[in-house]
Amino acid sequence: MIKQGVIILSGGLDSSVLAHFLIKEKKTNLLALSFDYGQKHRKELDCAAFQAKSLKIPHKIINLGFMNEAFTSSLLSSGDAIPEGHYEDENMKQTVVPNRNMILISIAAGFAISQNREYLFYGAHAGDHSIYPDCRGEFIQKLRETLSLCDWQNLTLEAPFQNLKKDEIVKIGYDMEIDFSQTWTCYKGGEKSCGVCGSCSERLEAFEKNGFTDPLIYL
Amino acid sequence: MIKQGVIILSGGLDSSVLAHFLIKEKKTNLLALSFDYGQKHRKELDCAAFQAKSLKIPHKIINLGFMNEAFTSSLLSSGDAIPEGHYEDENMKQTVVPNRNMILISIAAGFAISQNREYLFYGAHAGDHSIYPDCRGEFIQKLRETLSLCDWQNLTLEAPFQNLKKDEIVKIGYDMEIDFSQTWTCYKGGEKSCGVCGSCSERLEAFEKNGFTDPLIYL
Repeated sequence: MIKQGVIILSGGLDSSVLAHFLIKEKKTNLLALSFDYGQKHRKELDCAAFQAKSLKIPHKIINLGFMNEAFTSSLLSSGDAIPEGHYEDENMKQTVVPNRNMILISIAAGFAISQNREYLFYGAHAGDHSIYPDCRGEFIQKLRETLSLCDWQNLTLEAPFQNLKKDEIVKIGYDMEIDFSQTWTCYKGGEKSCGVCGSCSERLEAFEKNGFTDPLIYL
Repeated sequence: MIKQGVIILSGGLDSSVLAHFLIKEKKTNLLALSFDYGQKHRKELDCAAFQAKSLKIPHKIINLGFMNEAFTSSLLSSGDAIPEGHYEDENMKQTVVPNRNMILISIAAGFAISQNREYLFYGAHAGDHSIYPDCRGEFIQKLRETLSLCDWQNLTLEAPFQNLKKDEIVKIGYDMEIDFSQTWTCYKGGEKSCGVCGSCSERLEAFEKNGFTDPLIYL
């Protein structure tokens, strides 16, 4: 029985490896879904398109323009402005958009239901937990329970890499010969990866632990 | 201790009465939030604006254009089209947008967090349960548990009318002398309420049970 699924494919390393892993397993028929929410690192979306194409799976990008507008500008005369500089290393604890993961997963769930798909895949991994509240195992579990009730149709949220560390994910991708030069990780908006932000550092360490060379071009 | 809250104000009867109820209680400082997701009955948004103004509370409308685009048109060459006619009486069981409530509540939660508000109010009521999966008590409870983990900051989802029937909500609104002519209920997109769709019928019955006259103009 082939699972009919949607995968949230950001174009980052984790979701890209997960997409390849699921296709390689041959147990899942996948649609890839990405979100354009005005992220500074739009290269992610190009990478997502590349990976979906290489896997020959349909790829849909949903535009969430409201996120920039409603969450980051001074939205109400009485509103508290969100501090700037989300993407800076020293501000890693600040989520780009409050409740971002739940928003994206809820929309992806609606998309999956509208496409009559019963599985939603999501590339959360163990390393995220300490920084982001919405990557915690407890949170994912609650989300899973909520999604199981959101429609009359079944919807199962799966995060197969939930207990894996970044270096273990890199190892899985490497063994499948993924083109890692087409996965984007850097938090800054530059042409090349900075190599020094929290996100780049974690990636570089994951390659180093495996004794692999990251094919991305760094500044 | 005044609660700092956001209310999802659709401009329908339930959320409008809830907003007045919370302000009258004087235990909550409210921001009103509405969503423009291309609903046919855009009068709802005008009603939401009217009610927020009458309560002298700030009102923000978030544009969710993606819903129409991503969920209802033929979105992927391989995609299954969503059947048309969502708003017709005979199709009451079809949710306008799959997983709509979870999507709206997730976004409202992100908005509340960005505004440093710890309470999110939502006008679910008992009559909804049988039709919509995402109005069920179990669903709301799971959503509440999920939201309590979505951020490091506390966020409490409250649905004070969750166990009330429509006629009880009408009674509360009537006692507060709400302008019911500025609450929109009809599922059709007309200038006047149709009076015959499932939604209008429920509303009219709720007024009738109380022996009140609905000031809305019906076709």
